[in-house]
Amino acid sequence: MNVIVSGRSRHYRTVTFDTARNSVLLIEQRLLPHQFEVVATRTYRETAAAIKDMVVRGAGAIGATAAYGLAQGVRTFRGRDLTRFAQHTAAVYETLQAARPTAVDPVNAMNDVRRAMQRGETVAEQQDLALAAAEEFANEDVQHCREIGQQGVKLIRNGMRVLTHCNAGWLAFVDIGSATAPLYAAQAKGRKFHVFCDETRPRSQGATLTAWELAQQKISHQIIADNAAGHLMQRGEIDLVIVGSDRTLGRTGEVANKIGTYTKAVLARRHGIPFYVAIPLSTIDWQLKSGFAIPIEERHDHEVLGAWGINSRRLREYVRVANPTSTARNPGFDVTPPDLIAGIITPAGIFKPKDLWAKRRALGFTG
Amino acid sequence: MNVIVSGRSRHYRTVTFDTARNSVLLIEQRLLPHQFEVVATRTYRETAAAIKDMVVRGAGAIGATAAYGLAQGVRTFRGRDLTRFAQHTAAVYETLQAARPTAVDPVNAMNDVRRAMQRGETVAEQQDLALAAAEEFANEDVQHCREIGQQGVKLIRNGMRVLTHCNAGWLAFVDIGSATAPLYAAQAKGRKFHVFCDETRPRSQGATLTAWELAQQKISHQIIADNAAGHLMQRGEIDLVIVGSDRTLGRTGEVANKIGTYTKAVLARRHGIPFYVAIPLSTIDWQLKSGFAIPIEERHDHEVLGAWGINSRRLREYVRVANPTSTARNPGFDVTPPDLIAGIITPAGIFKPKDLWAKRRALGFTG
Repeated sequence: MNVIVSGRSRHYRTVTFDTARNSVLLIEQRLLPHQFEVVATRTYRETAAAIKDMVVRGAGAIGATAAYGLAQGVRTFRGRDLTRFAQHTAAVYETLQAARPTAVDPVNAMNDVRRAMQRGETVAEQQDLALAAAEEFANEDVQHCREIGQQGVKLIRNGMRVLTHCNAGWLAFVDIGSATAPLYAAQAKGRKFHVFCDETRPRSQGATLTAWELAQQKISHQIIADNAAGHLMQRGEIDLVIVGSDRTLGRTGEVANKIGTYTKAVLARRHGIPFYVAIPLSTIDWQLKSGFAIPIEERHDHEVLGAWGINSRRLREYVRVANPTSTARNPGFDVTPPDLIAGIITPAGIFKPKDLWAKRRALGFTG
Repeated sequence: MNVIVSGRSRHYRTVTFDTARNSVLLIEQRLLPHQFEVVATRTYRETAAAIKDMVVRGAGAIGATAAYGLAQGVRTFRGRDLTRFAQHTAAVYETLQAARPTAVDPVNAMNDVRRAMQRGETVAEQQDLALAAAEEFANEDVQHCREIGQQGVKLIRNGMRVLTHCNAGWLAFVDIGSATAPLYAAQAKGRKFHVFCDETRPRSQGATLTAWELAQQKISHQIIADNAAGHLMQRGEIDLVIVGSDRTLGRTGEVANKIGTYTKAVLARRHGIPFYVAIPLSTIDWQLKSGFAIPIEERHDHEVLGAWGINSRRLREYVRVANPTSTARNPGFDVTPPDLIAGIITPAGIFKPKDLWAKRRALGFTG
């Protein structure tokens, strides 16, 4: 990969495409918040590696990256033989899919691209259609996030203190984000508010990515330990909670999201603080019938046993915090039941979680 | 200070006294869990510095350290002049008190020592009485913790999974600890159980001190991110919660403890899991009439913005985790209301928090 921007950060889309160079451009998220770089993948194999190695993460962002990666790969084919082109396309698809095999977004995004390619009658036409479809996927991702903002902005009033957990910001999408979309929309309307970012141990996405985003956007914010939100709620210092979701069950209204989300929902309920979940429609799972059926990934325990940061020599380093002879449990996600959720903010409106199934046609269910 | 034990750790009291050297011996807690040292303070000024600099921390532990430090200081007086001896004693007392000015335990402990000294008619007698009183304070601290264990052991049944938060173990006292006392008593009876240690950000006392203690005691345990307990409770993997307390209000049953304790109590209530608080009687505040009157210390935000640990070169290092242009809120404690607490485990029995006031005579109230 080539580094094409380094040092000063401006507002970039998380994922874009450079047609002239046939390169996918990605904000190098592993260096954030301590260093800002945009990198260019020169081949679809490098794009797959960028997904696999977490240069890019977040549902919408890896979907767009895979779509662009597929276009990037098919555009390198030389010749007019449609059969051999189809074989090449399948190989590119499989390489990109294998980069994050459990994720659904890259698959959905690449299927969109392949469907569009079928309208072309020559290799050249299909190559052009692939890129156009990838651009459309990315633009739709941005548009969906913008619509989430338009729906959710009514929740953000002047002077509010808003809690969020993990990162469901523009770094997790192509731009704007889901949980952050109502905040950015409110800022655009000139409303003043303050955001508390849960640190979000063990991977600290709140302290690193969300805080960095909010700082870029010049939104008033403070990081808190995950332990502190209950106390702040008790003292009347939090008015609203907005989080994202990795998977929302359309049949039950249950929400799977980063570990610790459920705890914040329980606390919010005790204090009568509204708890909202902001999602694009692609996050809704219309198949699963119970949150207990959602597989909860147990991640490596070194995440809990230490921390990554910048040391006194300005170098990125892992330090072991915990007792060296102890081990850890590290569930990556939890499931919040619908009774704790005031509303699901979608591009199509704000819904009670229990109403998703009744509104399924309006929400894109095609089963 | 001299290092008198280094390297291999065995079970030591957190605070002891070496009569021959006139030294207070302390486990150097700032090096744990990565290095075990016992240090000897050569003068009462060094003892005060050890309290101030957090070589020793925890209510019972700093009480005993101050008591021994007072004895250490008065034992260096040469001469028979009782007036000058009283002046010297007052200077020692004030130096030790100033080391942690907001704590109540050093004051109570040193007042015990001074009261005992008044029974002596000569400087030599008073010096001997001071040391005897300090020893008695330390032994009583151990005895109180042992009694907490005897009261609480009935709560620990075979196969239980117990959650604890922060460190209220033997490192916070002279030995045994408060929240850990029922665990150690159950282990002595041969019961098998498993402990989940909340990491306890931002200072990570659970991941460092409690996990280290439990590893020393060969008790089955795992560290979890503070975010994970809600998920484990939801999946039926936690049966009991026991924590300590920095201050328990005798009039209301409210419990002030490390930030995050309240969150665990709210979660336990939602899941019908009993939540207990283990305390020596000295922790009960009989004066305050409301938990909202308890001052909540706001600590430096660098605790939240990074982490201390051991780097790849085996050196202790602070790494900045969070976005460099963001700040943090860092409340150190929170207050748990009595309706969330199944019982207060004391040396005198287990009480409903609301019953403390009615039982105040049995619990040492002398007002």
